Amino acid sequence: MIFLDAAATTPVRREVLEAMWPYLTGDFGNPSSRHSLGDSAARALADARKTVAAVLGCRPGEITFTSGGTEADNLAVKGIALARQAADPALNRVAISAVEHPAVEESARYLERFHGFTVDVVPVDGNGTVTPEALAAVLRDETALVSIMYANNEVGTVQPVAELAALAKGRGIPFHTDAVQAAGWLPLDVKALGVDALTISGHKLGAPKGNGVLFVRGRTRTEPLLHGGGQERGRRSGTENVAGAVALATALTLAHADRPALAARVTGLRDRFVAAVLDSVPGALLTGHPSERLPSVASFCFPGTSGESVLLELERQGVVCSSGSACAAGSDAPSPVLVALGIEAEVAQTAVRFSFDSSVTAADLEAAAAAVTAAVGSVRNLGLVAG
Amino acid sequence: MIFLDAAATTPVRREVLEAMWPYLTGDFGNPSSRHSLGDSAARALADARKTVAAVLGCRPGEITFTSGGTEADNLAVKGIALARQAADPALNRVAISAVEHPAVEESARYLERFHGFTVDVVPVDGNGTVTPEALAAVLRDETALVSIMYANNEVGTVQPVAELAALAKGRGIPFHTDAVQAAGWLPLDVKALGVDALTISGHKLGAPKGNGVLFVRGRTRTEPLLHGGGQERGRRSGTENVAGAVALATALTLAHADRPALAARVTGLRDRFVAAVLDSVPGALLTGHPSERLPSVASFCFPGTSGESVLLELERQGVVCSSGSACAAGSDAPSPVLVALGIEAEVAQTAVRFSFDSSVTAADLEAAAAAVTAAVGSVRNLGLVAG
Repeated sequence: MIFLDAAATTPVRREVLEAMWPYLTGDFGNPSSRHSLGDSAARALADARKTVAAVLGCRPGEITFTSGGTEADNLAVKGIALARQAADPALNRVAISAVEHPAVEESARYLERFHGFTVDVVPVDGNGTVTPEALAAVLRDETALVSIMYANNEVGTVQPVAELAALAKGRGIPFHTDAVQAAGWLPLDVKALGVDALTISGHKLGAPKGNGVLFVRGRTRTEPLLHGGGQERGRRSGTENVAGAVALATALTLAHADRPALAARVTGLRDRFVAAVLDSVPGALLTGHPSERLPSVASFCFPGTSGESVLLELERQGVVCSSGSACAAGSDAPSPVLVALGIEAEVAQTAVRFSFDSSVTAADLEAAAAAVTAAVGSVRNLGLVAG
Repeated sequence: MIFLDAAATTPVRREVLEAMWPYLTGDFGNPSSRHSLGDSAARALADARKTVAAVLGCRPGEITFTSGGTEADNLAVKGIALARQAADPALNRVAISAVEHPAVEESARYLERFHGFTVDVVPVDGNGTVTPEALAAVLRDETALVSIMYANNEVGTVQPVAELAALAKGRGIPFHTDAVQAAGWLPLDVKALGVDALTISGHKLGAPKGNGVLFVRGRTRTEPLLHGGGQERGRRSGTENVAGAVALATALTLAHADRPALAARVTGLRDRFVAAVLDSVPGALLTGHPSERLPSVASFCFPGTSGESVLLELERQGVVCSSGSACAAGSDAPSPVLVALGIEAEVAQTAVRFSFDSSVTAADLEAAAAAVTAAVGSVRNLGLVAG
């Protein structure tokens, strides 16, 4: 099997399993317990926090461990917006892009339904890019928070986050970015990015599912999402998942140890794969930005097919990929992300996304490109079209 | 080391590690992915859900996997109360007991601060019991939800949940119970209990930290806490922690396979331990209900000492326990639970809790009782008193 669905999830890296193992076995203390077992767990958690902070270039106290990217996004969007509204009721708008992950979008909609917020949606251009001009056009004195993702999960487009964050900063508005897809591939220095909050998910990086991180800068006030015992400096209650935090920290460090070289290698492989597919599949369209995109994502539409049928054909040939985000895999509606890029609904339903982890090889992608050509051809021949 | 702090957390059981291992290694799919790896993960998740449902006597669709007990409590209290208030704005009160875990209490306070709710706190008697009369006295037409724990985490008192739930049902009010401490020891049949929602935490049962369950009956509407991709039938977004769900289901099944026999055995050991401590430590007080208590919890105050000093002495002698809940271990304030039982603040600060898992032995507890006698004696001799 050639696994090209790493944007959905990744296998746990062996070094990660080894690092977390003690905390699944003998070293099982609750970090809040005041005895030797608790102390040992608390030290492991503190070390994991320092490790993550080192990659992000922030202070350990600015790192909150969560149960995943979705929780971190919810905490950032709701937590910061609600804390700002509580301090100043006039702050009742949030700005998000048209291509956000549902964890951000639905959090903003919750603010709308339950807390009287208005959601300003920033459009993207045909490449899926949020331009500074488009963001500037929606910012208002009432904007409590801007949340724009670092890189898109369906088409891989990388946003000009530093420019966008600077724009928000100039208006005194906190800026959050969902870096779930970017975290293994792009620089995460939060000072260079200029962001006030940033989300990471462990299972996209070689850590187990159920682990995430939210960076929140300095004294940015955040109403918690999970209230209770006051763990994580009151930002996130609940007994800390020590093994998970250690796993995430280990996976993040591994990813960033050789990130520039890895990104360059995979970008080269991706470009060859994209060229091969565009060359050999008549009518194939690359979706997302041609160059400002994640090294790890090659996304296409194959007009005149059905994305689902192409996927089935590909799996029969041993290539596992997806139609878009796993989160929406159960839905028959065209991807809102592709529609936001101006792609027609009928074409959007022919989307296929290939996404890679660090283990991807040239041979994998050569085989995959051949399989794509064959799969699209046979679907078209069989008349298995969309709808 | 004799580990008598199982109410804070438990080691992961070997069978649990074995059951979850495939989902930390080769079988790493995202349950939302529409391919063979995703299907395999989705099947494991469905099986885990069925397994949990079988123990609770409910339908699998009534089980939501969460990141732990705190998240499950937050989802129940906020989610049900907000959904009811959205349907009928007059429903703006919640009733909780005076001895709830902070995950319930702080969730109720959040409703008060952000959603205009009033929190009615039901007092407990000197044993820590919520009587049906006390609950009846606070219920009103405006009560959106009652949340009363199954068994208390600090003093082990078991509440008459079936009676209390019946009372709420008679008024048409949904009833949630935090069964985090009860789950390994008491019957969990949600029909017999008559509850509409019930919280379980994995790491109190021999599963890893970061896993919990919320049962919500039938069509009880629940506003999600985590919004996003719509996993868990829309009740809890975020990629599901498959390994964690399998672990929790395995641990719960193991605990319930021999629960009555285990509970009887540990109750016998606990009663002998309590008798030995009360007999040999002058002035020792058992806190909580003398008989309606968890098999696994023996909790005392030792007036004229400091709980922290006794704990240090005990740890020096190889006995690990706690002053109360791990969640509040960093706090110097007297336990609100003990204060609610009518115990004076000065005495409350001398609290020591011993809590057992299924591996506890008679020899452990004989050694522990001797250590307690020695520890309290030496703290009193040294004049290490509270404050």
